[in-house]
Amino acid sequence: MEKGTLLYEGKAKKIYSTEEKEIVWIEYKDSATAYNGEKKASIAGKGRLNNEITSLLFLKLQELGIGSHFVKRISPTEQLVKRVDIIPLETVVRNYSAGSFSKRLGMEEGLLLSRPIVEFYYKDDDLGDPILTEDHIEILALASVEEVEELKVKALQVNKVLSQFFKELGIVLIDFKLEFGKDADGDIILADEISPDTCRLWDEKTKEKLDKDVFRRDLGDLTEAYETILARLGGQTACTK
Amino acid sequence: MEKGTLLYEGKAKKIYSTEEKEIVWIEYKDSATAYNGEKKASIAGKGRLNNEITSLLFLKLQELGIGSHFVKRISPTEQLVKRVDIIPLETVVRNYSAGSFSKRLGMEEGLLLSRPIVEFYYKDDDLGDPILTEDHIEILALASVEEVEELKVKALQVNKVLSQFFKELGIVLIDFKLEFGKDADGDIILADEISPDTCRLWDEKTKEKLDKDVFRRDLGDLTEAYETILARLGGQTACTK
Repeated sequence: MEKGTLLYEGKAKKIYSTEEKEIVWIEYKDSATAYNGEKKASIAGKGRLNNEITSLLFLKLQELGIGSHFVKRISPTEQLVKRVDIIPLETVVRNYSAGSFSKRLGMEEGLLLSRPIVEFYYKDDDLGDPILTEDHIEILALASVEEVEELKVKALQVNKVLSQFFKELGIVLIDFKLEFGKDADGDIILADEISPDTCRLWDEKTKEKLDKDVFRRDLGDLTEAYETILARLGGQTACTK
Repeated sequence: MEKGTLLYEGKAKKIYSTEEKEIVWIEYKDSATAYNGEKKASIAGKGRLNNEITSLLFLKLQELGIGSHFVKRISPTEQLVKRVDIIPLETVVRNYSAGSFSKRLGMEEGLLLSRPIVEFYYKDDDLGDPILTEDHIEILALASVEEVEELKVKALQVNKVLSQFFKELGIVLIDFKLEFGKDADGDIILADEISPDTCRLWDEKTKEKLDKDVFRRDLGDLTEAYETILARLGGQTACTK
């Protein structure tokens, strides 16, 4: 497989074509951004960490019967994935209060919700990724009523599997963001990444934050936090490599 | 009926007890506020206009089978209503894009939506009245799933009746906000007010705004706009009184 032309460059990844029409080549960048791009930094090793973690998590989901766009890891910072048309929604699952949810609703962080909930945000940087109701999604024709239902079911399935998996590693899955896309057949599949950039992960015992909040809130060394996650997932860390 | 002690003072109204436990006395104030109280003014006559318009609209709804807390108008600025516990939700119905909806979703104002939609906002000034999903309402225990369904059904019924009524007066009902409360029996009834403070009302022909956007956006004389609404509703305006 060869890397073709650059198709898209996002805040955290570059996507290239390959000689196979239905496969694209993803390169994880070392950039960290928060607050809709207002806070930025380049953090050496971050691209590698997110690529390794995402690869391990997509493989784990696959093992447990949940497919995604993931095809294979091809280098420490690169992976091949199925080409999809991304649905312009961020699908967020919350198990505990945190982040914008806590701020919006005036609820302290770390409270267990009575059940996991799914929220949708409009992927639109100019609008600041606003939260959407299901009616908004329908009015904006971003997804059909049936598709929204499917996104919710799939997101809760991922939550069930990932929550249990992280629990076994002594990590609490507070909340996370998923993106879905449509493949060539029009089927909805899980896409994008699953990493400490897109999940809130707290150490079960110490409640230490092991995710992008370390960067957002200047809580310490992002690389160290992400290395902890990778190590617990059983992946190679920079130290042992 | 006599006016008792002040029970509550809001941005636009004062509420007093009466000698009847289940009846309260509402006095409409001349204050205008917008953007969560950041913009304020006192506008002579506004209290009277909103009291008269609300009284006429609640009577009209009653005629058409939709009850509310309204008991009777007792002076140009006062009315008696049933005492209710207000549910801390703003129930918003939108027929056309406008205001925060347009801003949030990047949609120009005045577009007819494919169907009327209902939104809920958390009545909490400190949090800036954030929009809520139905899951948020459940998690915050602001209303049960069944109650939310009842609010939606009732809000859409009010919309159907009011849209038709305003249409006959050459006015387009763009969107509006309702508040509901629970009476002594625990039944949900329509409460608060229905006025150009809580509805967006555009002249059907000229598209002139005849509501609080005149104040919010400094578009002209608020009193004149509200007098136009009152006159079309067949009420006494200041000029003819």
